[in-house]
Amino acid sequence: MSFSSETAGTLMNRREFVAGAAAALVPTAASARTETPDLKPVLAEIEKRHDESVRRIQDWIKQPTIAAENKGINEGRDLMVRLLKEVGCNPVTICPTDLHPGVFGILDAGAPKTLAVYFMHDVKQVDPSEWSSPPFTPTLVDKKGLGKILVGRGAVNSKGPQGAFLAAAHAIRGAGRKLPANLVFVCESEEEIGSQHITQIVRRPEVLTALRKCTGVLTPSAAQGLDGTVTMSLGAKGVIELELVSTGEKWGRGPKLDVHSSNKARLDSPAWHLVEALSTLVSTDGNSIAVENYLEKVRPVSTAERAMIDEAAKRQNEDLLKQQLGVKHWVRDVSFQESLELLCSQPTINIEGLVGGYTGPGGKTILPHKTVAKMDLRLVPDMTAADALSKLKAHLAKRGFGDIEVNMTGGYDPTSTEPNSLPVRVETAIYKRNGIDPIVWPRNAGSWPGYVFTGEPLKLPAIQFGFGHGSGAHAPDEYYLIESKNPNILGIDGAVRGHVEFLYEFASAS
Amino acid sequence: MSFSSETAGTLMNRREFVAGAAAALVPTAASARTETPDLKPVLAEIEKRHDESVRRIQDWIKQPTIAAENKGINEGRDLMVRLLKEVGCNPVTICPTDLHPGVFGILDAGAPKTLAVYFMHDVKQVDPSEWSSPPFTPTLVDKKGLGKILVGRGAVNSKGPQGAFLAAAHAIRGAGRKLPANLVFVCESEEEIGSQHITQIVRRPEVLTALRKCTGVLTPSAAQGLDGTVTMSLGAKGVIELELVSTGEKWGRGPKLDVHSSNKARLDSPAWHLVEALSTLVSTDGNSIAVENYLEKVRPVSTAERAMIDEAAKRQNEDLLKQQLGVKHWVRDVSFQESLELLCSQPTINIEGLVGGYTGPGGKTILPHKTVAKMDLRLVPDMTAADALSKLKAHLAKRGFGDIEVNMTGGYDPTSTEPNSLPVRVETAIYKRNGIDPIVWPRNAGSWPGYVFTGEPLKLPAIQFGFGHGSGAHAPDEYYLIESKNPNILGIDGAVRGHVEFLYEFASAS
Repeated sequence: MSFSSETAGTLMNRREFVAGAAAALVPTAASARTETPDLKPVLAEIEKRHDESVRRIQDWIKQPTIAAENKGINEGRDLMVRLLKEVGCNPVTICPTDLHPGVFGILDAGAPKTLAVYFMHDVKQVDPSEWSSPPFTPTLVDKKGLGKILVGRGAVNSKGPQGAFLAAAHAIRGAGRKLPANLVFVCESEEEIGSQHITQIVRRPEVLTALRKCTGVLTPSAAQGLDGTVTMSLGAKGVIELELVSTGEKWGRGPKLDVHSSNKARLDSPAWHLVEALSTLVSTDGNSIAVENYLEKVRPVSTAERAMIDEAAKRQNEDLLKQQLGVKHWVRDVSFQESLELLCSQPTINIEGLVGGYTGPGGKTILPHKTVAKMDLRLVPDMTAADALSKLKAHLAKRGFGDIEVNMTGGYDPTSTEPNSLPVRVETAIYKRNGIDPIVWPRNAGSWPGYVFTGEPLKLPAIQFGFGHGSGAHAPDEYYLIESKNPNILGIDGAVRGHVEFLYEFASAS
Repeated sequence: MSFSSETAGTLMNRREFVAGAAAALVPTAASARTETPDLKPVLAEIEKRHDESVRRIQDWIKQPTIAAENKGINEGRDLMVRLLKEVGCNPVTICPTDLHPGVFGILDAGAPKTLAVYFMHDVKQVDPSEWSSPPFTPTLVDKKGLGKILVGRGAVNSKGPQGAFLAAAHAIRGAGRKLPANLVFVCESEEEIGSQHITQIVRRPEVLTALRKCTGVLTPSAAQGLDGTVTMSLGAKGVIELELVSTGEKWGRGPKLDVHSSNKARLDSPAWHLVEALSTLVSTDGNSIAVENYLEKVRPVSTAERAMIDEAAKRQNEDLLKQQLGVKHWVRDVSFQESLELLCSQPTINIEGLVGGYTGPGGKTILPHKTVAKMDLRLVPDMTAADALSKLKAHLAKRGFGDIEVNMTGGYDPTSTEPNSLPVRVETAIYKRNGIDPIVWPRNAGSWPGYVFTGEPLKLPAIQFGFGHGSGAHAPDEYYLIESKNPNILGIDGAVRGHVEFLYEFASAS
């Protein structure tokens, strides 16, 4: 999930966590609930099943599903099916797509309310040489100042947090109870490559029917920063990932294959062609989008959003954040407040990578026939991926770069959830009851395919929720905290308890 | 050598070779010589020593010296010393430089005239998986329409042609004669990485003293195209190879390490910074240099040069050349004649490669902290490498890109030789005597470090000369023709004979 620790984590910089969170299962005045079942037997089950819960996550990590490399697709799918069956889903359905399959499961507890749960069971690629331990041999180690962590690819993104959610359901059932809410699981295995076929899962008639019965969608996460704070995002930017490819072949100018660089004197260069095309997309400082009509659908920042931004600016430590990001300045030297407004409200056109011609050590005197820019474009409401793509193409064509291939490899629209929706109110209550005053944030600057739930036709509120902590998503030594020695953060048992609390609160809230 | 087959080869497209060249050792009226020694015994030696000559080249190829990879430096140096000693040089001196050593040898034949000979004993890197046979196991194979070729890295660039020159000296000595001219060998092992330290060889007092006695400099080459034609270049462009490196660290803006791409909304991008800097260097079509004052020292095309260009345009087949280059248009759709004028008279700023951020398959949502453009800049008289570099830096600084590192990895000034100089007159006579009417060309669009000889303080005329054929310099399956079945081209024995003829003609010409 491209939004979890990397971006949200940078927002958690002040101590908001109040000691004693672990004991805070007693409802408070802040809660909307009127009746509270006795959770002690469930709590006991969580403790009793600690090893089982950790082992479940370990087994999951041992079975990598890497969409980008077409690895472990069927094995990962079968394990996903098994995990849903074990938690009590019936039926569990495999949903083939044009690429990698999804899995859909219904846990009917006979409850009045139903919660949808979004899972991803693919993980990012690894370079094992960069890891301290083999990435698919999940290892429990002590991390100074933190406690016992589980290291492995997918530990925090997202098998650890998802495992904690499954453990909550197992604990409730283990205590001899029915779940307080029915669950509808929607699991995909293409999240790390842009969720290109998630609509093929969600738009299946039986999935749509099940989702229409839901009151909201939950994505389990490990939302606590090192200081315990939690940022609650009311949505996320959309994204387009694409390659801009300039070739002599397609252009009809310059060479079809690499030639000796001395020929530059008489031949056009596809590399220069790409550079010139790129330079038309943004202002000369690289910070303002110059694609024609591109910004016309950008929704202005609302008064409510501006209040959230002001609050976030007050609660965050700008210096620490800059230090974490390794930067000295925001774009155009704007204030911290403005930087946060840009972060949550503005679309971006970013160069992920440039690759063309000779890329090895030293030089090689060639005129390359092909050059590629890898781009990601973040989208905000009311932009759509289809419209943004079409405007980019029109812009390039109008400026004489219509030959440059625009190969979209993944992406989707932005997603938004109302702050007063039931799932947001419930998660707020749970966080507050546990002593955390979450930072409410208009929109995550990263992306997840929530639009399939929050957009037409379902229009469901969707949240990411979860106590606990982890880091290193997409990076080496990814970890998820198992046993916390840090008083600000909960370990896995605390995260499981959080989900138990959420389910009961969700079931009883109105 | 970056100028040999790749660029010159594209100029050889018409049949100019007259049958019977191999027998043309009898002097003609075109020759300035008055006395001609009987070359029959030498000719017999060439034939007798054919296998020895081929084996010498094979042994040389088996000992790769790859400057870029710091491989075989000492071994190659020692072999170079041995080859010069075997041909009769005394003394042979190793010339250490700040990087890889040169070798200097004097063959004093007691002759009135002295010829300098430039050798390179390093070769380009290889990817053995792209080769039909192991690149450092020189293999004799039959090539259709051509004859028996020797395949291996360095076969044509430049161990084959250099081996042919050595074989000429061995043949003369083998026939019991003294060489008609003294020889001064200057050998470097950094040609393939830009000859950065060749001045440290040539500027040594004993080398300068020896070179001051020379009447010209010869670089052995395999100058014949597949149709037998030869292009005689009266010089070559200079070159600068450099990397433009944009980093957040140096810029003081953007991140010091890669961060999640969602941060583009608030952070500057070193990748965009490089793209914008690059786009200021050239016109929007990528074809005209826009660096301030960059062209002020470019010498206008002379009447004599324009006549050579006109002649070359007549003698070359434009359609075939375009086909060989894989192109449909010259820049700005200029005429063939104009394209040739650009090729020999205009400086270039070329992108060899772009590399930054994520360069693997698919995408990765990062904002890269570093992006690099690998460039080569070809220089024409009266530009100098130092001046061009300084203008590029000044241009970048003036436009707000002064933080972008300009890391020059190699390069040197242009080189020019007068068309009426003695070595040019001699090579013309030898080619014509052998039925070849060479295309005289103002300036090779590629580069070689001839400026160390043709510039101050030596001001020696320098030529590339040699019958024979090869191809694949810097590419897989590089070859040098050993036994020609093509009536237009000479094999190695013909190339050796050509050098014997050259030495006698050089010695007697005035």
